[in-house]
Amino acid sequence: MKMFAKTPKPPYYAVIFTSTLKSEDPEYDKMADLMVNLATKQDGFLGIESARSEVGITVSYWRDITAIKQWKAQTDHQVAQSKGKHQWYSHYITRISKVERDYQM
Amino acid sequence: MKMFAKTPKPPYYAVIFTSTLKSEDPEYDKMADLMVNLATKQDGFLGIESARSEVGITVSYWRDITAIKQWKAQTDHQVAQSKGKHQWYSHYITRISKVERDYQM
Repeated sequence: MKMFAKTPKPPYYAVIFTSTLKSEDPEYDKMADLMVNLATKQDGFLGIESARSEVGITVSYWRDITAIKQWKAQTDHQVAQSKGKHQWYSHYITRISKVERDYQM
Repeated sequence: MKMFAKTPKPPYYAVIFTSTLKSEDPEYDKMADLMVNLATKQDGFLGIESARSEVGITVSYWRDITAIKQWKAQTDHQVAQSKGKHQWYSHYITRISKVERDYQM
């Protein structure tokens, strides 16, 4: 995964996913990598940024709400979401937001 | 810092700040803690979430654009922004986004 997402000029969408894990699990890491690979193949995917220390934050960027809904409904991703919910995450919050402006150094 | 921000019902705003550091610097960590403390005292501040591994992602949540602008213009924060730009960060992207919906476990 590249460290910074090369997103186009706003507007576009950001899915901010903040989570804590019950425990370290190599199977989780494998699944997370697999999901990033799958996401990059989805229509409307723009990029992803991810960091984990005490808490994990993954921000994925999308062309529009339709692209986000399609990714949420993708079959393999649904399996991963269910495993995440029941097996890996102790808590998470997902926030869907519309990026209105950005600037960088 | 709490791990999860206890944000109200959307809409509200999220500032997604993704960065890489030139090198580890205890002075940076101190300044980051100080800025979090200052931010919590700003009008319209709703919460903050932060993680750093290969890349750092800090998401701060705000009532509206006005609150974000006031925080960007806050004097001590301006000093920190300048030091960040010239001394600590090798690269960063700031994205201002409007949270339209959220859900959690």
